[in-house]
Amino acid sequence: MTTQTEKLTSEFDLIARHFTRPAANAVLGVGDDAALIDVSNGMDLAVSTDTMVSGTHFFPDVDPENLGHKSLAVNLSDMAAMGAMPYWATLALTLPSVDHDWLAAFAKGFFDLAEEFNVSLIGGDTTRGPLAMTVTIMGEVPAGAALRRGGAKAGHDIWVSGSVGDAALAVAHRHGKVVLAEADYREAVMRLYEPTPRVALGQALRGLATSAIDISDGLLADIHHICRLSNVGAKVELPLIPVSAIGRKHIGLKEGLTAIVAGGDDYELCFTAASNSRESIAELAEILGVPLTRIGTVSRGKGVSLVDAGGKAVALDGYGFDHFAAS
Amino acid sequence: MTTQTEKLTSEFDLIARHFTRPAANAVLGVGDDAALIDVSNGMDLAVSTDTMVSGTHFFPDVDPENLGHKSLAVNLSDMAAMGAMPYWATLALTLPSVDHDWLAAFAKGFFDLAEEFNVSLIGGDTTRGPLAMTVTIMGEVPAGAALRRGGAKAGHDIWVSGSVGDAALAVAHRHGKVVLAEADYREAVMRLYEPTPRVALGQALRGLATSAIDISDGLLADIHHICRLSNVGAKVELPLIPVSAIGRKHIGLKEGLTAIVAGGDDYELCFTAASNSRESIAELAEILGVPLTRIGTVSRGKGVSLVDAGGKAVALDGYGFDHFAAS
Repeated sequence: MTTQTEKLTSEFDLIARHFTRPAANAVLGVGDDAALIDVSNGMDLAVSTDTMVSGTHFFPDVDPENLGHKSLAVNLSDMAAMGAMPYWATLALTLPSVDHDWLAAFAKGFFDLAEEFNVSLIGGDTTRGPLAMTVTIMGEVPAGAALRRGGAKAGHDIWVSGSVGDAALAVAHRHGKVVLAEADYREAVMRLYEPTPRVALGQALRGLATSAIDISDGLLADIHHICRLSNVGAKVELPLIPVSAIGRKHIGLKEGLTAIVAGGDDYELCFTAASNSRESIAELAEILGVPLTRIGTVSRGKGVSLVDAGGKAVALDGYGFDHFAAS
Repeated sequence: MTTQTEKLTSEFDLIARHFTRPAANAVLGVGDDAALIDVSNGMDLAVSTDTMVSGTHFFPDVDPENLGHKSLAVNLSDMAAMGAMPYWATLALTLPSVDHDWLAAFAKGFFDLAEEFNVSLIGGDTTRGPLAMTVTIMGEVPAGAALRRGGAKAGHDIWVSGSVGDAALAVAHRHGKVVLAEADYREAVMRLYEPTPRVALGQALRGLATSAIDISDGLLADIHHICRLSNVGAKVELPLIPVSAIGRKHIGLKEGLTAIVAGGDDYELCFTAASNSRESIAELAEILGVPLTRIGTVSRGKGVSLVDAGGKAVALDGYGFDHFAAS
């Protein structure tokens, strides 16, 4: 089914070589029919795949270095949410044309983050087509110790790392739904483009968190994912949700609130834990230098409700996330 | 960076559920932040990723069931070329719109082949965008026993499984470069759309083949890949190349020959072996019911040459694959 010419194939071979770096963790890296890795005894291999498509997951004018960073960061975040240690990644990159400056910048963003987390690019594929990238990440987690979505129980606390909402506020600003001051936009958009995967936190939460997820779809949607898998409900207290100084300026308005609780792209960890773990979690926050905030409680039943300072339900209808209610 | 609406997200969640089947081989399958697999002791994990993009790798009018088959088959073929036993796959599927009939057919093609090879779909991602799919496949191979590209030595035989050229002849027919009779096209196009990954052969070649590759780029190009990694040259004898009855009708014409030796998409295995392995390889062909044909010899030096019955070099220039010569 190859419809591209030999010339293009050669050109794409060249690109592939731009992404060939020594794979320190692998038995065999890029360049054969498959890579080979040696998974340690007693460890499960955690595997996750995420695709980003131009126009769907990022604005076409995105800085390629940011995009390289983000394409790996969202996958590292999945490893964090499993409590796994990431080691290996493959990259399938589809490009409309060959632009070596663009590629060099993308590769820089990708490899700078990969080196920071000691992740080896062990394989991939470079093809011609509309701009998109699929990263598959692999890591190790002690057998039986992974943080799953299905372990939350009624009475457990709901926690979130860092702050949420800035990334979605930047998107809402681009869509004309909120108006950020220029300096605020510049700050918020970096949360969108260069999220910080909470890899160390995820591993530290093994044995402590009863369930975990990374916030990609939006805080309430992701809590809803935990609830579905755990067969529980959740009550989230709006005044407890940690937001940045930028978020505080916009949370009072409908569009700002929507972005913060339902916008997603935060890549913070949301997790549940028994209430007698509060002290351990506070210590962990201090050791890691990552704010950890208790924002609600797991309940019997189904559905996620958001309540205000007076305990009154914040009406979800019309906020674009009413499908998170009991169903 | 999420620019799609909640409504679409929900719709895509629904699609993802269409691809959620029990993952017999996995500790944890689809539905969490990552899948978990337990790689056996003494085994290396083999990992490979392939992307197919509409218009680049397949015609936009392809039957979705064929496409589902092929998207997995080309990855199974990479496992075959490593001598690995495939067990797990992830699927990242990008769709321009939601067409449930199309999805059901694609899933059927994918899962029919997955079940045939006992491969579990353990994760993936479904996104909106131009039609494309990236499959990452994982399998096991005894540590140290994988078939690599780099082990060919001067004097070794070059072998190929099955026959080559039909898939590329079907493409050439679609492009108006050759004219196949209607019945021939219908037969050839099935080689294009539903290639047979040589998984059992790959595993049987462990300890016997000195290098191996699957033929995706084209017979000569893939032999060239082996030569580059093995630091050797190769002489391929045109009259020995196994072609189908369809191929025999077209190999005498320049465009037919080009398709057969350089077109690719065959997904047969090409491998090298010491000349004292000929009897073992003939036995293997019989046991597996797969034709294995000796087509040439590994040589000192660089580059791949194609020779005719008289040992005379077939001029490669103008055939679109002159870059396989020594370089």
